Amino acid sequence: MARHPLDPLHADEIAQVVKILNHSQRSKIRFKVITLDEPRKQDFIPYLEAERLGDLLPTPPNRKAYVYFHTLDDHKFHRGVVNITTNTVEVDQILEGIQGPADADEQIEIEEVCNVHPVVLAEIEKLKLPPNARVLNDPWGYGTDDDSIKSDRRLIQCYMYAALSDDPEANHYSIPLPFSPVFDSNTKELVRIDRLPLNHDDERVDTQAWIPRKAVEYSTALLEQGGLRQDLKPLQVQQPEGPSFSVDGHLVEWQKWRFRLGWNVREGPFLHNVTYDGRNVLYRLSLSEMTVPYADPRQPYIRKQAFDLGDIGLGMTSNCLTLGCDCLGVIRYFDGFRVNAKGETVKMKNVICMHEIDNGIGWKHTNYRNATSSVVRDRRLVIQCTATVSNYEYILMWTLDQAANIHCEVRATGIVSTMPVNDGVKLPWMTRVADGVGAAYHQHLFNLRIDPAIDGFSNTIAYEDSERTSDDPVLDPYGVGYYAKITDIERPGGYDLDVNKSRVYKMINPSSINPISGKPAGYKLHAHPSQMMLMRPHAPGAKRALFGSKPIWVTKYQDGELYAAGEFTNQSAADSGLAVWAKRDENVKDTDVVLWHSFGLTHNPRPEDFPVMPMEMIKVELRPTSFFTMNPSNDVPRSNQKANKSVLVPSCCDGPATSSRL
Amino acid sequence: MARHPLDPLHADEIAQVVKILNHSQRSKIRFKVITLDEPRKQDFIPYLEAERLGDLLPTPPNRKAYVYFHTLDDHKFHRGVVNITTNTVEVDQILEGIQGPADADEQIEIEEVCNVHPVVLAEIEKLKLPPNARVLNDPWGYGTDDDSIKSDRRLIQCYMYAALSDDPEANHYSIPLPFSPVFDSNTKELVRIDRLPLNHDDERVDTQAWIPRKAVEYSTALLEQGGLRQDLKPLQVQQPEGPSFSVDGHLVEWQKWRFRLGWNVREGPFLHNVTYDGRNVLYRLSLSEMTVPYADPRQPYIRKQAFDLGDIGLGMTSNCLTLGCDCLGVIRYFDGFRVNAKGETVKMKNVICMHEIDNGIGWKHTNYRNATSSVVRDRRLVIQCTATVSNYEYILMWTLDQAANIHCEVRATGIVSTMPVNDGVKLPWMTRVADGVGAAYHQHLFNLRIDPAIDGFSNTIAYEDSERTSDDPVLDPYGVGYYAKITDIERPGGYDLDVNKSRVYKMINPSSINPISGKPAGYKLHAHPSQMMLMRPHAPGAKRALFGSKPIWVTKYQDGELYAAGEFTNQSAADSGLAVWAKRDENVKDTDVVLWHSFGLTHNPRPEDFPVMPMEMIKVELRPTSFFTMNPSNDVPRSNQKANKSVLVPSCCDGPATSSRL
Repeated sequence: MARHPLDPLHADEIAQVVKILNHSQRSKIRFKVITLDEPRKQDFIPYLEAERLGDLLPTPPNRKAYVYFHTLDDHKFHRGVVNITTNTVEVDQILEGIQGPADADEQIEIEEVCNVHPVVLAEIEKLKLPPNARVLNDPWGYGTDDDSIKSDRRLIQCYMYAALSDDPEANHYSIPLPFSPVFDSNTKELVRIDRLPLNHDDERVDTQAWIPRKAVEYSTALLEQGGLRQDLKPLQVQQPEGPSFSVDGHLVEWQKWRFRLGWNVREGPFLHNVTYDGRNVLYRLSLSEMTVPYADPRQPYIRKQAFDLGDIGLGMTSNCLTLGCDCLGVIRYFDGFRVNAKGETVKMKNVICMHEIDNGIGWKHTNYRNATSSVVRDRRLVIQCTATVSNYEYILMWTLDQAANIHCEVRATGIVSTMPVNDGVKLPWMTRVADGVGAAYHQHLFNLRIDPAIDGFSNTIAYEDSERTSDDPVLDPYGVGYYAKITDIERPGGYDLDVNKSRVYKMINPSSINPISGKPAGYKLHAHPSQMMLMRPHAPGAKRALFGSKPIWVTKYQDGELYAAGEFTNQSAADSGLAVWAKRDENVKDTDVVLWHSFGLTHNPRPEDFPVMPMEMIKVELRPTSFFTMNPSNDVPRSNQKANKSVLVPSCCDGPATSSRL
Repeated sequence: MARHPLDPLHADEIAQVVKILNHSQRSKIRFKVITLDEPRKQDFIPYLEAERLGDLLPTPPNRKAYVYFHTLDDHKFHRGVVNITTNTVEVDQILEGIQGPADADEQIEIEEVCNVHPVVLAEIEKLKLPPNARVLNDPWGYGTDDDSIKSDRRLIQCYMYAALSDDPEANHYSIPLPFSPVFDSNTKELVRIDRLPLNHDDERVDTQAWIPRKAVEYSTALLEQGGLRQDLKPLQVQQPEGPSFSVDGHLVEWQKWRFRLGWNVREGPFLHNVTYDGRNVLYRLSLSEMTVPYADPRQPYIRKQAFDLGDIGLGMTSNCLTLGCDCLGVIRYFDGFRVNAKGETVKMKNVICMHEIDNGIGWKHTNYRNATSSVVRDRRLVIQCTATVSNYEYILMWTLDQAANIHCEVRATGIVSTMPVNDGVKLPWMTRVADGVGAAYHQHLFNLRIDPAIDGFSNTIAYEDSERTSDDPVLDPYGVGYYAKITDIERPGGYDLDVNKSRVYKMINPSSINPISGKPAGYKLHAHPSQMMLMRPHAPGAKRALFGSKPIWVTKYQDGELYAAGEFTNQSAADSGLAVWAKRDENVKDTDVVLWHSFGLTHNPRPEDFPVMPMEMIKVELRPTSFFTMNPSNDVPRSNQKANKSVLVPSCCDGPATSSRL
């Protein structure tokens, strides 16, 4: 079957790349990542445009794979490009001083090494745990401090917990243990055991006998206090005529939208080549990074800072989604393929679900004179994944609607990262969420990468401020006037939001003028104003994630510049992404430009966030502005009972109807 | 049937009040408002507490009505209180220099007076409209300028439009006409005709012959360009076992929530006496005001500023909701009752709809070691109304969820207010949305009133800032620490949000300490940071809506202080609400306190907002914080296919399954 140049690599292609690479190296290989090497944009645009316009297609670019691997005899980390079409290794670089991302097998290997290490077992012995207890560990990215920057070792920090029952969902995060082994992932050696601080000060004591505590459980088998509530009635979504979308491979068409659904182990699902009614809107839309710095200033917690895309990957950690659980209604799933450490292809089943939802009223107007009313519902197409990064869950949703808006929604749920804390100790950067259990304050800083193609591939980023008109007693004697002040961005850099000016960033095509408004066609970003990185600028965590210091970034497009904090974040010393690219002194006006939006949550946990946290949601939206000459959902069929088949709950006690104006 | 003291007035009660009032006056009466006079809070709390605790109920307070009316012989405006239980008029005040709100009959009367006035007809004649055209007018609140403050007349400004067909949904807002008559609503006299500015400067010309233009229509009968899209498949919501809520009169119970659903002509639906699992959460939750100032500095537009609650009322303008249109699924409606000008009771059918929705995943955790997963869906209870304020629609939604969160959502839709503009004229405060049609920039400023009862009726408002810990090289050598700085509010006033500090306002009960976190039980406001009132402080519109100058207000509770801009906004000269109440020098800490949140949209229209605007949504949320000892939705049944009955869309081209980690 012919693959589209933007299709993710399929199983056979991954297998082929493994073969090519195995032939190319003397050493045995540990495979890390084999993913699509996306076509060079400028060369590829003619192909996409021919597709869009129904013209004769040029020769497609060769299928290529972008690969990371270790050669096992020297522990060297390689980055390469393999040409699948020509069966050749095009690039094979050894990267010194760089740690590639973790992979699923590595996590499991370290878990196992830690579980049976005699020094670890000796520590566990000291805890004198009850016989029903099981000790588990979550391997964490080591993060960075001055020491680790100097070291060339591949380090993993294991946080230790105990589960108090055999239940497969026993909540071990409720019983954090007071020591944390550090391993070298290449050699599997124990580097040292960190003793965790249990008090306000930096005092460390030898492991003591465990003080018995009850775990706070979420497993239904372990619930106390009456179990589950009994009064929730089923709610079902049906589409008797099937869904409104059509799928051909990774090409999705729905309600004038057309896009290629991308997926890789790093970003999970993303959207490529997004058009509306045959017009270019976006070249690529992706979540480019997220980092979670913790606020606890004590060792080893100062290093605790996950980069959930760069350190392991939203696709790599994506759940197999289940019918009736993760989406409701009529669901289409997509699988992902990855390589494992041994070079086997792994099918990651149902890592994306796609379905339609009803989001209430999309638009409505009633002519009050005659009570005639038109209602259009807000039908949406949702593309969703959920990723489990050890204790925590992220839900990423790309949503399209009929008014030509595009939504990015992130939900944070799962179990907050916990630490042991002595009774009676109050720490200013922590909430006690259970007996003996603290949850440190932390931030979630995301970055959304928007590669626009507003009516073509030469765009400008501008911001619009709503500002008072000049204080002119003739023109504006009462002081009511305000206007929209537009500023085109001419140079790359980090830019600010300003709620007090209602500042809105727009992606516009200065050559495509709207005949009604006289303004350039564009899409505007409804950003999520957030507190930026709280760490001080000298903190290693701040240097590694400079993208989190400004809400808006603008760069000139370059192939391969996809990730806000740079390509490699594991044990990184500095942000090698926006921190570098946004410094180039080059024109970004009316050219191939990329808009990046950093947003986040400052999460100071509540007891309500334990054992599993009720989701907290962030939404960011892209809305057309002078892209259309009128409401693009003006042609959506009006809401009616014949199609919607709603059901009336009768009320028994209403008086007789008289009249109503509307 | 016995009425609860918080039940809205029923038809028989309104009829009884009309009778009492008619007997009490020599003059004939024009009725404006007859609504529940809510019980005095301090006297009433023992009754509510007895109900909550299942104790013997004290004697309920008398049922009383709060009334506005005009005596027709002297055009005086009266405000009164009628005791329904005792059949007596308790209060009858004549308010001089104050204009009460408009009512539905008044709007229709002025429309009709304007339609047939010879001077208006003479102006229309000059337009030389085609024979199929119908001229209509929308009566608007006159607003305020220096002149009107001095006048004691009740003024209404009619904006004139032409519909170009007989279709009941012909969009007359697409053909705005260039003159605007002003009427005295008491005497029905024409005060003058304002000529509308058509250019940048203040030049006014006599009415010219209309330049033929095509209207932009939304009526399906008038659509061009291929009509409606054909590829939208039905999506239906079913609850085979019925809804999960129960209703007894205005008492609603759902998923541990219990509240009294209030409704009146001014506020529409609001929530009273909200408890969760038998614990007090809120005394009263309401949308207290919204104002819409326009940015056009030319006469007469400088006065264009709707107060959609105070000038007419969200309940008064509420639509009769229709099965399958305004809500989807299993729907319970509630009616409202009001008085008309003649003293007849009007049943406003289906002014509130209530139903459950599925909002995706509520929480999820997967144990990655064994791929065991728990998913709880985010089931919500939605209470919704839609109000048509002439051209524009607001959708107000109160939403409760199973994680004990409360959401206030406002959707703005309908048709933007339009004005005629000459060809080629560009105005900095306006977008051209159609040929010859401008839509002025404007703001929507809402105010949410939260009357808390966190574990009782003595609460404190505090704000929490997430701030870096002090730069201490011993305690925090790497600069990663931050903490939550809490400030209790001790005095009433207007307060600020601060995105850069992730500032969160909390309502806490200092006497109810959470045994896990050691912190006081509370609910926190997830506010919507917005641009505040743009008008200069000397603008009449800014003075009338001082509540729109600060996002957060705190006042000590006083009976009757319900509306952010004050009780009377029609032709008001100044904010008589928060502007006054927040100035009192009194303690607001650990007492009966009210939290108010002003938020809004700065709406610079797009061509996409015409003819009907795709809704723009604002959400504000209240979340428990240390109110519970753990996730309150931990006991919600896990999502499963047996209850949800989702349907798989098969994909034809998947390879063979191998394995997946999760």
